[in-house]
Amino acid sequence: HHQVAHSVGIIGVPFSKGQPRDGVQLGPDVIRAEGLVQKLRGQGCAVKDYGNLSYEEVLPDEPVGRVKHPRAVGDANRRLSEAVRAVKRDGRTAVVLGGDHSLAIGSVHGHASAVGDVSLVWVDAHADINTPLSTPTGNMHGQPASYLLHELRPKVPILPNFSWMTPCVSAKHLVYIGLRDLDPEEHFLLNLVGVKSFSMTQVDALGIGRVMEETCDLLCKDGTRRPIHLSYDVDAFDPAVTPATGTPVMGGLTYREGVYIAEHLANTGLLSAVDVVEVNPAVGVSEQDVQRTAGVAVDILLGCFGRLRGGNHPPNFCLPDA
Amino acid sequence: HHQVAHSVGIIGVPFSKGQPRDGVQLGPDVIRAEGLVQKLRGQGCAVKDYGNLSYEEVLPDEPVGRVKHPRAVGDANRRLSEAVRAVKRDGRTAVVLGGDHSLAIGSVHGHASAVGDVSLVWVDAHADINTPLSTPTGNMHGQPASYLLHELRPKVPILPNFSWMTPCVSAKHLVYIGLRDLDPEEHFLLNLVGVKSFSMTQVDALGIGRVMEETCDLLCKDGTRRPIHLSYDVDAFDPAVTPATGTPVMGGLTYREGVYIAEHLANTGLLSAVDVVEVNPAVGVSEQDVQRTAGVAVDILLGCFGRLRGGNHPPNFCLPDA
Amino acid sequence: HHQVAHSVGIIGVPFSKGQPRDGVQLGPDVIRAEGLVQKLRGQGCAVKDYGNLSYEEVLPDEPVGRVKHPRAVGDANRRLSEAVRAVKRDGRTAVVLGGDHSLAIGSVHGHASAVGDVSLVWVDAHADINTPLSTPTGNMHGQPASYLLHELRPKVPILPNFSWMTPCVSAKHLVYIGLRDLDPEEHFLLNLVGVKSFSMTQVDALGIGRVMEETCDLLCKDGTRRPIHLSYDVDAFDPAVTPATGTPVMGGLTYREGVYIAEHLANTGLLSAVDVVEVNPAVGVSEQDVQRTAGVAVDILLGCFGRLRGGNHPPNFCLPDA
Ligand SMILES: [Mn+2]
Ligand SMILES: [Mn+2]
Ligand SMILES: [Mn+2]
Ligand SMILES: [Mn+2]
Ligand SMILES: [Mn+2]
Ligand SMILES: [Mn+2]
Repeated sequence: HHQVAHSVGIIGVPFSKGQPRDGVQLGPDVIRAEGLVQKLRGQGCAVKDYGNLSYEEVLPDEPVGRVKHPRAVGDANRRLSEAVRAVKRDGRTAVVLGGDHSLAIGSVHGHASAVGDVSLVWVDAHADINTPLSTPTGNMHGQPASYLLHELRPKVPILPNFSWMTPCVSAKHLVYIGLRDLDPEEHFLLNLVGVKSFSMTQVDALGIGRVMEETCDLLCKDGTRRPIHLSYDVDAFDPAVTPATGTPVMGGLTYREGVYIAEHLANTGLLSAVDVVEVNPAVGVSEQDVQRTAGVAVDILLGCFGRLRGGNHPPNFCLPDA
Repeated sequence: HHQVAHSVGIIGVPFSKGQPRDGVQLGPDVIRAEGLVQKLRGQGCAVKDYGNLSYEEVLPDEPVGRVKHPRAVGDANRRLSEAVRAVKRDGRTAVVLGGDHSLAIGSVHGHASAVGDVSLVWVDAHADINTPLSTPTGNMHGQPASYLLHELRPKVPILPNFSWMTPCVSAKHLVYIGLRDLDPEEHFLLNLVGVKSFSMTQVDALGIGRVMEETCDLLCKDGTRRPIHLSYDVDAFDPAVTPATGTPVMGGLTYREGVYIAEHLANTGLLSAVDVVEVNPAVGVSEQDVQRTAGVAVDILLGCFGRLRGGNHPPNFCLPDA
Repeated sequence: HHQVAHSVGIIGVPFSKGQPRDGVQLGPDVIRAEGLVQKLRGQGCAVKDYGNLSYEEVLPDEPVGRVKHPRAVGDANRRLSEAVRAVKRDGRTAVVLGGDHSLAIGSVHGHASAVGDVSLVWVDAHADINTPLSTPTGNMHGQPASYLLHELRPKVPILPNFSWMTPCVSAKHLVYIGLRDLDPEEHFLLNLVGVKSFSMTQVDALGIGRVMEETCDLLCKDGTRRPIHLSYDVDAFDPAVTPATGTPVMGGLTYREGVYIAEHLANTGLLSAVDVVEVNPAVGVSEQDVQRTAGVAVDILLGCFGRLRGGNHPPNFCLPDA
């Protein structure tokens, strides 16, 4: 493998209103503090950091049904969609640093509005596919997939500040990896629309090698090479690997499996946007745990942009002779 | 997968005389304290807790050869056999919470006396197959399999308080998973009777997916669907996963592998009795380690009774429309 | 599996000049302190401990180009080569306890000078294949493979105190396992000479079972049964498993995978020399971490000499009857 020069555009999304825990809005900065930009450049990427998304407080923002903060989530995602579209039109692979996972609404929407149909690989302990009506908690970080899927349009009422978006992903182009904590409602919805899911049970049964092989087979089986949107929730990892996150669940991905997913998708040459979300430095773990979590987030992104554990070298590399 | 409603009967066995360490008699209560009953009910099971087995002190109880406490172990297991038989006759899946692993003598015997031939899946770091004559330590928790196997009857002298029991399992219906610490005597006995064993070497070589596939193939290869007795020693797990146990051995099952075993056996629809043994809160680990160990014991049982990491929903489930 | 009686000769190499960190010269003694000799004897091996290699300080020892301490490394390896050759001529399997990995130059050379062509299995986070000209650091523990390979002779200038050695391994007889941190120069060299490497990416993709199967297929595919030299750097393991080492890298082998490698190679009957290197008790970890690391080193060696997690018994074993 020779190194490929990637062009990367980073957008931070310091947003936390899709869930109840303070701190996740600091995710973009703790990830950057682990040296993301420098390390990407060190492996040959051309990196532009677009800074953090700015948005304004939306008040009042009363719940609609059970859904909390719908206007704030809608407004921030509208802005994010535009920002991601701009990065794509600059010819860069978009990297969106969360913030909570509700940002995937805008990130995937902006991506698809720039490039057309995308494949969506959702790495997460959770399916995040509740509708505004099925959600048991009202937290919008548990709902983005339902907004994004064409097939769920009839189940998803339009919330205030969401008139800008329409679904943009087909259920057959979505693959989940790492699931292990689903509401009955979510399981029903997954079955209803026929999404492919590699839960931890499948990861255990098949091994991560076959999971990724089957993932890529599924996403390419109609013969088209759609751009891939990778939406990576760090709670997909085992809590021992990424302790600084808001909704940890036992029995997650190992560090190695998580990096393998990134390497394998990078190897398709189709990665076109990547979200890394739910790093939360304020969930009561040590500073070392925060750094470890952010470091794993960085390592995922290094894997997405050409780092291979087996090594690589630039295409024009040559060596001194004796 | 739709949820199946299981009917479960729990028996605690606060017994420790099959081994030398104090504390394992508290296992049933620390497992219950992690919310076993409520969590099983939460996933739709009909649960009856039969409480803890009562038995009396047996004194004197001098060793017979090297075998320690034979009369106490014999008497408690006679009572347990009757209790398990009663649970099975109530039409419930029996859950036996240990206590030390010598209780498998009564648990398997009672199960087989109610339902006939059983398949026995023994998940353990140890084979627990020493005979009263081969045992290097005399501890009866290292011997239950030798009492249970038809093929070892000629090797097992009848001890005091054991006249009530006869062997009830065929070697070809027994499968071990997780072995990594065997006495030479035990290895000789395994070979002698031809028991199938997936030691940690095989788990590493094949992956847990193929181990469970082969396990179920083996147990079903004569075309009959015998009820399965799962006897789960928590020391099968790595000590990092279940530190509160009396004879930990490095290099054990991961949490995920251990849960996968339960899920896969549950999926056969044949699980008819489950022992979870050797949780010992008094082996000098932290309170958090005790809770973690008991929590893993609970998670095994949730997996045995329908919890799937990929999610599920009740058969009559329906969803609100927009 | 019946136990085979192995004849083992142990050489300690208290050498650290192939790298900059103090402490790795204490490796042989901390490994012995975990009971290596007694445990090997306990599983039936005939063990002779040849003690620690003695060598003298070489002064002055100015760098040659970037290469640090070339004369000391050359001299110690000349002595080690002779010591390993003597152990092999005694008819023993050589066990070389490091010390830093630069000792592989002498260990493999001495082995090959006694037995002829060898297969070399290099388990390491690093490829250790920089040449004296390509090395970014000058540390010789990152270079031994380049000295050993016939194919790299034109790239490796002869350093002072190295006139005694010539390359002795063919690239097609070398297999790497565990790589995850390579310099671009090293990746270029690996490709140049066509060495087979199972990086952590391949271990994740294939599982350790298939990795070892393919390793043995590769080494045996010309139909000859060359003796195997296993050169095991403990940094191949995850830092959580072997924290007391000088250049830890995240995402390494599990304890189980590392032991499986040893078991599988032992099972070929071809293991003829084993290095275990880079245990460093002085890298700022706890005494418990040092013991754990040295204990893992011991467990690797027990696996190399007949310990099987599935158990075994001596060939003449018999059991008391009832
Ligand atoms: Mn999540
Ligand atoms: Mn999520
Ligand atoms: Mn046991
Ligand atoms: Mn055990
Ligand atoms: Mn090395
Ligand atoms: Mn190394």
